[in-house]
Amino acid sequence: MTDLTIWTLDWVPEGPRGFVRDLRLRWACEEAGLAYTVRTVAFDDRATNHLDQQPFGQVPFLTDGAVETFESGAGLLYLAKKSEALMPRDAAGETATTQWLLAALNSIEMVTVPWWFLRMSGEKDNKLTGWVEMRLNQLEKELAARDWLAADRFTVADLLMADVLRVPDVRAFGSRPATEAYVARVTDRPAFKKAHADQIAHFEAADAARG
Amino acid sequence: MTDLTIWTLDWVPEGPRGFVRDLRLRWACEEAGLAYTVRTVAFDDRATNHLDQQPFGQVPFLTDGAVETFESGAGLLYLAKKSEALMPRDAAGETATTQWLLAALNSIEMVTVPWWFLRMSGEKDNKLTGWVEMRLNQLEKELAARDWLAADRFTVADLLMADVLRVPDVRAFGSRPATEAYVARVTDRPAFKKAHADQIAHFEAADAARG
Repeated sequence: MTDLTIWTLDWVPEGPRGFVRDLRLRWACEEAGLAYTVRTVAFDDRATNHLDQQPFGQVPFLTDGAVETFESGAGLLYLAKKSEALMPRDAAGETATTQWLLAALNSIEMVTVPWWFLRMSGEKDNKLTGWVEMRLNQLEKELAARDWLAADRFTVADLLMADVLRVPDVRAFGSRPATEAYVARVTDRPAFKKAHADQIAHFEAADAARG
Repeated sequence: MTDLTIWTLDWVPEGPRGFVRDLRLRWACEEAGLAYTVRTVAFDDRATNHLDQQPFGQVPFLTDGAVETFESGAGLLYLAKKSEALMPRDAAGETATTQWLLAALNSIEMVTVPWWFLRMSGEKDNKLTGWVEMRLNQLEKELAARDWLAADRFTVADLLMADVLRVPDVRAFGSRPATEAYVARVTDRPAFKKAHADQIAHFEAADAARG
């Protein structure tokens, strides 16, 4: 029996399948060989049915015995403590990994997600576009210089950065060969493929139950 | 002699004074009683003059002997390892602190900063407004229930959340008494006042040098 549980929604429409953020935690567990269970909260009243566990009504959150944690970035840092496969154990490697994990969230995703949201809201050309372009160009220079963000090896920072970058609107925006090669390389990992396939299967199985 | 160095700009215009993010690291050092030095990169060519240390051309970044780290959130987690004043040492307290620090960045600031950016770009009413309102209302419920985000005590998560929330446009947006009391309480701490005054003085001193 395993205590490590990843919580996600019981069902989502086809659009977000393959992109719901429980994938980040599934992927990390697969990389680390950590056994885990997936449990669900209901899609239909998701904004209010799990506020005790996630005050913003989002998924995923993680439980591990008595420990509970939400925010996918925090979940990844939590899992990284369990396995060197996700983060080096030396101070320099741990600091670099943490830094790039935060950069994925606060320097890249902070711009790409609101930009994507405006595009989905009908503003294909919006005032965040220049900011997104600047950030992706800056990151392209980094990725042209090396294969992995931190510590010359795959870390949980690559997992998160690749997950941020693989969003279709972001991936299709401009031509950045090093970034594209990076996303292709990181998402070619067996652990990503397993996590991705498992998420798709999870939501497809729920279609039948909804009738 | 101290090795811990917070890097910021040598000067900024009046507008951002008191809000440049080196304040987050100054504040954390003041809370923890950590000795530190402030060093600078030039404002005038800031987009390119320190890419070796901060690939997005931003400040702050932190050096500590041979260790370098950018991203204010990563800097805060780095400093939190040095002092229990910033983060509890038990696993549950550390996990809760990390979770709320990430929430400040990825659930609140990810919406408020692009929203503020659109407002500064002339779009006072923009399509991120509803999202900001939802997040702040969700957070208001949390802050109405307790004084501190994690572990029933001040942590670096409060430092960061209060810094995100004290941005004037955010603070003035709607009436949320628990959030306002929280921001007032956290920024009333002597360590915040010292860090804030030091940043203002730092940039004012540079006015003279620029002539």
